[in-house]
Amino acid sequence: MLRTHTCGQLRKSDVGSPVTLCGWVENKRDHGGAVFIDLRDRYGLTQVVVGPPEANAELIDAAGHVPNESVVLIRGKVADRLEGKVNAKLATGEIEVRSEHFEILSAAQTPPFTPGQSDLPGEDLRLKYRYLDLRRKEMQDALIRRSEIIKCMRDYFAEHDFIDVETPILGRSTPEGARDYLVPSRVHPGNFYALPQSPQLYKQILMVAGFDRYVQVAKCFRDEDLRADRQPEFTQLDLEMSFIDADDIMGLIDGLVAKTAKQVLGKDITLPLPRMTYEEAMRRFGSDAPDLRFGLEIVDVTSVAAKTEFRVFRGTADAGNFVRGIRVPGAATLYSRRQIDELTAYVQQDFGAKGLAWFRVEDDQTLWSPIAKNFDPEHLAEIREMLGGEPGDLLMFLADTWEVTCKGLSGLRKRLATEMKLYSPGDLNCSWVTEFPMFERDEESGRYVAMHHPFTAPLAEDLPHLVDSPEKCRAQAYDLVINGSEAGGGTIRIHDSKVQSQVFELLGMDEETAKDRFGFLLDALRFGAPPHGGIALGVDRWVMLFAGLDNIREVIAFPKTQKATDLMTQAPGEVDSAQLNELQLRTVSVKT
Amino acid sequence: MLRTHTCGQLRKSDVGSPVTLCGWVENKRDHGGAVFIDLRDRYGLTQVVVGPPEANAELIDAAGHVPNESVVLIRGKVADRLEGKVNAKLATGEIEVRSEHFEILSAAQTPPFTPGQSDLPGEDLRLKYRYLDLRRKEMQDALIRRSEIIKCMRDYFAEHDFIDVETPILGRSTPEGARDYLVPSRVHPGNFYALPQSPQLYKQILMVAGFDRYVQVAKCFRDEDLRADRQPEFTQLDLEMSFIDADDIMGLIDGLVAKTAKQVLGKDITLPLPRMTYEEAMRRFGSDAPDLRFGLEIVDVTSVAAKTEFRVFRGTADAGNFVRGIRVPGAATLYSRRQIDELTAYVQQDFGAKGLAWFRVEDDQTLWSPIAKNFDPEHLAEIREMLGGEPGDLLMFLADTWEVTCKGLSGLRKRLATEMKLYSPGDLNCSWVTEFPMFERDEESGRYVAMHHPFTAPLAEDLPHLVDSPEKCRAQAYDLVINGSEAGGGTIRIHDSKVQSQVFELLGMDEETAKDRFGFLLDALRFGAPPHGGIALGVDRWVMLFAGLDNIREVIAFPKTQKATDLMTQAPGEVDSAQLNELQLRTVSVKT
Repeated sequence: MLRTHTCGQLRKSDVGSPVTLCGWVENKRDHGGAVFIDLRDRYGLTQVVVGPPEANAELIDAAGHVPNESVVLIRGKVADRLEGKVNAKLATGEIEVRSEHFEILSAAQTPPFTPGQSDLPGEDLRLKYRYLDLRRKEMQDALIRRSEIIKCMRDYFAEHDFIDVETPILGRSTPEGARDYLVPSRVHPGNFYALPQSPQLYKQILMVAGFDRYVQVAKCFRDEDLRADRQPEFTQLDLEMSFIDADDIMGLIDGLVAKTAKQVLGKDITLPLPRMTYEEAMRRFGSDAPDLRFGLEIVDVTSVAAKTEFRVFRGTADAGNFVRGIRVPGAATLYSRRQIDELTAYVQQDFGAKGLAWFRVEDDQTLWSPIAKNFDPEHLAEIREMLGGEPGDLLMFLADTWEVTCKGLSGLRKRLATEMKLYSPGDLNCSWVTEFPMFERDEESGRYVAMHHPFTAPLAEDLPHLVDSPEKCRAQAYDLVINGSEAGGGTIRIHDSKVQSQVFELLGMDEETAKDRFGFLLDALRFGAPPHGGIALGVDRWVMLFAGLDNIREVIAFPKTQKATDLMTQAPGEVDSAQLNELQLRTVSVKT
Repeated sequence: MLRTHTCGQLRKSDVGSPVTLCGWVENKRDHGGAVFIDLRDRYGLTQVVVGPPEANAELIDAAGHVPNESVVLIRGKVADRLEGKVNAKLATGEIEVRSEHFEILSAAQTPPFTPGQSDLPGEDLRLKYRYLDLRRKEMQDALIRRSEIIKCMRDYFAEHDFIDVETPILGRSTPEGARDYLVPSRVHPGNFYALPQSPQLYKQILMVAGFDRYVQVAKCFRDEDLRADRQPEFTQLDLEMSFIDADDIMGLIDGLVAKTAKQVLGKDITLPLPRMTYEEAMRRFGSDAPDLRFGLEIVDVTSVAAKTEFRVFRGTADAGNFVRGIRVPGAATLYSRRQIDELTAYVQQDFGAKGLAWFRVEDDQTLWSPIAKNFDPEHLAEIREMLGGEPGDLLMFLADTWEVTCKGLSGLRKRLATEMKLYSPGDLNCSWVTEFPMFERDEESGRYVAMHHPFTAPLAEDLPHLVDSPEKCRAQAYDLVINGSEAGGGTIRIHDSKVQSQVFELLGMDEETAKDRFGFLLDALRFGAPPHGGIALGVDRWVMLFAGLDNIREVIAFPKTQKATDLMTQAPGEVDSAQLNELQLRTVSVKT
């Protein structure tokens, strides 16, 4: 080793010891004929003094001219800091190293930015010079936390007898769900591998093979247009178990959540985590990933709306649609008319709502609103009572289709909670949503599409609906929700090849296509398949939530931009025509 | 859980307990009006009895007709086996479960083969029905051992303060070394990502970023024509450290070898592992990955050959080539003339040797051979003495170029050791080979190519040779050799951008090309780069060697064939033209 200690290691008890340190020059200042250097590495910061009597004039001069961010090696003795110079904020703050030897291992040119500077440059520049950005303590902490969380997950599943199995990255394209990344084959020209969107089929095959408990931290890929929190490649904690039901998987993950929260954040989580059905989540929170860090529950007042004279409410009720609202405690003095107009524009623009009806609860418990005159006071009292409104509250309502009231009120809940600071950044709220519908209707084609994926088993009691009314069929599915984000999702799988074929058919796949794409799975289910199920947890999302961050690119060492570009290496890039010839490929301009 | 116990769990102390087991019907037999079932899962085998009085006639009949490999659930009580029916070879061999309830969870059709059958079908069929092949105990053991070895590695590096960082799979193509797998970009038509051959550049960037100690179990990819022990995607234990030298890396890996051997095999390994230079390895064993499980060391007798009358020997010496041989103890009675002729054909065909000269050491210490008459007895005595020949030994020689004597004698060593059983299958011999040449000459172009990769640092003392005679330049490189196979390799890296540019130039890369491909690395080295180095261990190879297997496909859950095909999923496959249109690609027939 070039060094005897790291820059975070030396303490008062080391005073007098000869040491060698290596690190980056974060800062330096001249003071009283000596040069003071803040020497930095991953472990901390140590003050190094190059000055008399240990250092001669030449050494002091050299130290004075070393550019910041250079890598240096320093030999010297640990000394007490002078009275009054102790830095209590620094782990090494009681000592300094008085340098007898000073050597530049790598002189730095002036970098585009330094990790110590307070004003961060734009993200593009930070991504281009990622090695500089990754020198920042925040970035190092995030990636170290990522490493700890993944270690914690792996240890947990090893303790529970899971086998870590690697599944292939070069797989078969199955053109449904998201878009695949393709990899042309040189040995079989005209044929392509696909990068996996998940190890779904392989892990089911492992269950048919009798592995019983499988786990993997798996790289997955989706060639989708990227949102702020999506990346073309992402990491999943993927697992599968045999001879279990949905309760077993949720119970297992409950334990992981508690262990991770305890180990990484020192937080105690009460188990079991709360569970609610999809139906309940949509009814009470308008979302299948409800944020339970705060209240603002949705209340359905359609029954009262139907009785009122207010045209918008009654018309909605008469058309079989819904009037639903939330009570916002104490908001009456916080939100001006202008701010409420902004909320109205928000639900109109983002969710297609027709408008936002609102009431203020007055001191005498009556409701005031520009539209209040359209209501019988008795009906208003009824509405206030249903929402539990108290003086100073605002009550807000959407009158619309089920979908628009769900989306609009869910959006409103989140916006109000953020603006009113109804939760604190350190909160960690975890819960389950279960019994999702098996199928949704694709709006364009009118076809059924699988809400999770086509391998999901229906609830046993809903199995008959597969034939008569698939839309009523609920799945043995469960999503883990953390702070209103989906942090994982899983299902019990179909282990009967006949049911699997039936589902393929419902999804509009003819027998030949099903056989071509999933023949090996249908075969496997015929040769003795155990009941099985599993879950995949979004590791990037977990780390982001557990680290209290809100940008997924801050928890990934080398992320891609929203245009799927690596700004440091300039990937993707052009390739030699010889490479394309070998693959028997041509690039062409195609209007799409 | 559907079951209360696994099929490997019940013991004599459980007798009388009610239990529920799930598993596969491995075998069944009728005996005395009852059906005996061997119920199997990953954990073991339990004997289940479906018979009176616990089971009624209907249940017994059902059990008698369940096809083998079906998955069943059984409820019953644990009972002692009858006197004389105890199976000491089975962990559950003292008990049986007397079934009261019997339920088929998944009836199996007759599979193409069963895991219990003694005659294995061909590998292609086993790969097609991988879920059946993976039910075999040998395959489950190999993959469980793989999982254990990787866990052991990860724990070791976590204990040593390494941070597990994931590097991208979608990277930039750098067309040198092996062939890249390319991934067309949809967002940037005509541009491609490449799957990484290793995380080399990313891990160096992490060192420049100050991560100090990085580790990853990384998927790597090479689109090469496959040899028996190569796969298009393979797994590396990849690591990098700052402020260290070659000794530190070797010492660290020594500890890992010892820990893995102890934990996985219960073997004690003496540390430090032996080290020899490349020069010594080639001189003594003719190989840079010498198999040290046995002797058969190479001895150079060119100095004597130059004095003899034997035309072949003297001619070789006169031409500046080499006469080198090995002593094969006790081989005189083991190898007939015909068998020696086969060895001669082997070195001629496989290594281009001109022939094989051999001598038998007689009881009186003289050498007998068809060519002995061409030698002065004094020279023969000198040769025998140089090799330490004893009565009953064979001495074998090649007279050829340095390269041919190395390759031929190395091949001969391995073949003889295998045939003569000079090592046992359980042996685990680990050592280091160091100080490889920096460059080799490409035979076709005459150009220098990097023996490890272009980021390897030369030995400090050889740095001046970079300018005057690059072929004399030795690298700070080290390969880990286990049982004559390269099980890992690493180097100390160049951390000076000027030296790096110099090496790029030596490798025939002009400045513009170097900047285009590796500009970000050259930049990074200018902004404060620590001295650093690392290593990559071949995980598939490690598992194979530690599991005592000789086919790499037996330690990979879903391997590809030598034509890079997955026979189960039929990857690679055709894709929709819509997919290619989106990528602006066409497949064409190109004569290559």
